Amino acid sequence: MNATPPPPGLSRRRVLSTIAVLSALPTVARAQAAGSPLPSWNDRPAKQAILDFVRATTDPASPNHLPPEDRIATFDQDGTLWVEHPIYTQVMYCLDRLPVVAEQKPEFTQVEPFRTVLSGNREAIARLSLRDLEKIAAATLTGMTVEAFNADVAKWLATARHPRYDRPYTDLVYQPMLELLSHLRANGFKTFIVTGGGQDFVRVYSERLYGIPPEQVIGSAGMTKYTYSKTGEAFLIKQPKLLLNDNNAGKPEGIHLMIGRRPHAAFGNSTGDREMLEYSRTGDGARLAMLVLHDDAKREYAYGPAQGLPDTRIGTFSRGLYDEARKAGWTMISMKNDWKRVFVFE
Amino acid sequence: MNATPPPPGLSRRRVLSTIAVLSALPTVARAQAAGSPLPSWNDRPAKQAILDFVRATTDPASPNHLPPEDRIATFDQDGTLWVEHPIYTQVMYCLDRLPVVAEQKPEFTQVEPFRTVLSGNREAIARLSLRDLEKIAAATLTGMTVEAFNADVAKWLATARHPRYDRPYTDLVYQPMLELLSHLRANGFKTFIVTGGGQDFVRVYSERLYGIPPEQVIGSAGMTKYTYSKTGEAFLIKQPKLLLNDNNAGKPEGIHLMIGRRPHAAFGNSTGDREMLEYSRTGDGARLAMLVLHDDAKREYAYGPAQGLPDTRIGTFSRGLYDEARKAGWTMISMKNDWKRVFVFE
Repeated sequence: MNATPPPPGLSRRRVLSTIAVLSALPTVARAQAAGSPLPSWNDRPAKQAILDFVRATTDPASPNHLPPEDRIATFDQDGTLWVEHPIYTQVMYCLDRLPVVAEQKPEFTQVEPFRTVLSGNREAIARLSLRDLEKIAAATLTGMTVEAFNADVAKWLATARHPRYDRPYTDLVYQPMLELLSHLRANGFKTFIVTGGGQDFVRVYSERLYGIPPEQVIGSAGMTKYTYSKTGEAFLIKQPKLLLNDNNAGKPEGIHLMIGRRPHAAFGNSTGDREMLEYSRTGDGARLAMLVLHDDAKREYAYGPAQGLPDTRIGTFSRGLYDEARKAGWTMISMKNDWKRVFVFE
Repeated sequence: MNATPPPPGLSRRRVLSTIAVLSALPTVARAQAAGSPLPSWNDRPAKQAILDFVRATTDPASPNHLPPEDRIATFDQDGTLWVEHPIYTQVMYCLDRLPVVAEQKPEFTQVEPFRTVLSGNREAIARLSLRDLEKIAAATLTGMTVEAFNADVAKWLATARHPRYDRPYTDLVYQPMLELLSHLRANGFKTFIVTGGGQDFVRVYSERLYGIPPEQVIGSAGMTKYTYSKTGEAFLIKQPKLLLNDNNAGKPEGIHLMIGRRPHAAFGNSTGDREMLEYSRTGDGARLAMLVLHDDAKREYAYGPAQGLPDTRIGTFSRGLYDEARKAGWTMISMKNDWKRVFVFE
């Protein structure tokens, strides 16, 4: 009931165009086959482990039956729910956004690492260090209202395309994982994303892609600053200061901060998920810890254990994680052998 | 499926006793009258404002209709959902817990402000500064696993009694606000607590008292540290370092961090809620901002505007808040005039 104009970066037209863009995103999460659960999974141990866990936690006669409020399942995103190669989608967004930011800050053309990104030299960009990428993230993900950021991400997602598949990034969601999310929710589980990626970024599309509302997305999060427009309206401006680094030990710490309960099931694919899986495995009752193995170069990518555990920058899978997973009996999901279909568009 | 023993402070007996204690707490939130909504509210403008807002946001023919995912309502806790006088319940917990902590730290008997608390001198305790209370909070709310903390709070809640009402603190929930929570949820709203109090503390009882699960409680939150027991199980230890001060501007910042959407309705009672109400009021469509006025010395307490706006330590209601509320048309809820009944036990 407030008719005063919004501050710069948040025009009504922009907000409306965001809504239009979001409406056009594919509602993959709803495109589930009815009938028997997990239709895109082959009848192998991974599928059986999921079905056994759900049965054990929901059958009232089971000694491991869980009351609905304890049915918490957490999922890493990049490499677990959608493609993370050749580079995290959010990093691609930051690289694409930098020229826009540089229009306001011409000095960027003289300063590294911005100069390299603006040069468009792909090989040099691929060699940027993690510290460089952090500087680029700080420059491109902060300084605007949260509404302006959401609108810009939605706009980018509607047009950006994955270099290999030549499709929107939002198409590159794993169909078997969508079926897993649906099966868990159909059995009273509350599903959460716990991502090392930016919380605000993932929240823009999480409900439409995965059926997971923004408040059930935990990710790396920056601080915001409360402020007023000239007309006295209240806004939050994204700040270049990290509040939660949602990787490694940051994952269980973020889970406690945002959920406050220990999950009984957790799904990941890389070293950054190790502590989340350990945390979810500790405690009484049925516990499910699973790792997606990228061993399907034909349909997706092969890296990590499939490549002899090289130390890669995207989706690192350390020897320690591998050994612990084997020892503790975490269930591995082989994309190649366990999944009939990888993507919904196949 | 893990049979290794838990670390100190988390014996199975302790966890089981917590569950027993929690089960014994009154399930007030469910004790709602069926039939017409808000039965404990008098037919006055406050009740009408709630009914009008819900109708405007849920009637598909209304120009202010909200899709279910945008139906977010946030509630302050102390003084808005339950009694906050003569002192916040959590502060009482900290004071009660200090002697237990001092058993392990005998030096506390020589150090202020602990010495004052341990002396039991009520007048001196009442004069402790905010800084003193922060030191006491850091000493009593940190250093243990999150599970041990939850168990201790649950145990305390089962026996501690409010000095005036001589009842468990968990009885001192406002019946009309429970009806408001129920009415909103029955109309597709997701209800959140946004408290300046400790997030972990409130989460122990929020589901049972208010029907609000832990993950929908946002509060002041400390950091946790991921660690392993000797047998390799994973635990989080509460740290004496603040991550989110969920007061004033911290409330909208916390809302963005934990919910990621702007509420359309917000309810508070003191200066610490001002920014949350402003944030919820900014934007298109129907918006509801309400303040509970404590003007009922007979059934509850009279302070704030009812006492000429003195600067009190509990439930401060500044002149600025009062003026803004009047100017912006925030709806005031008079406990004395709007509520037929304050508590469920009346």
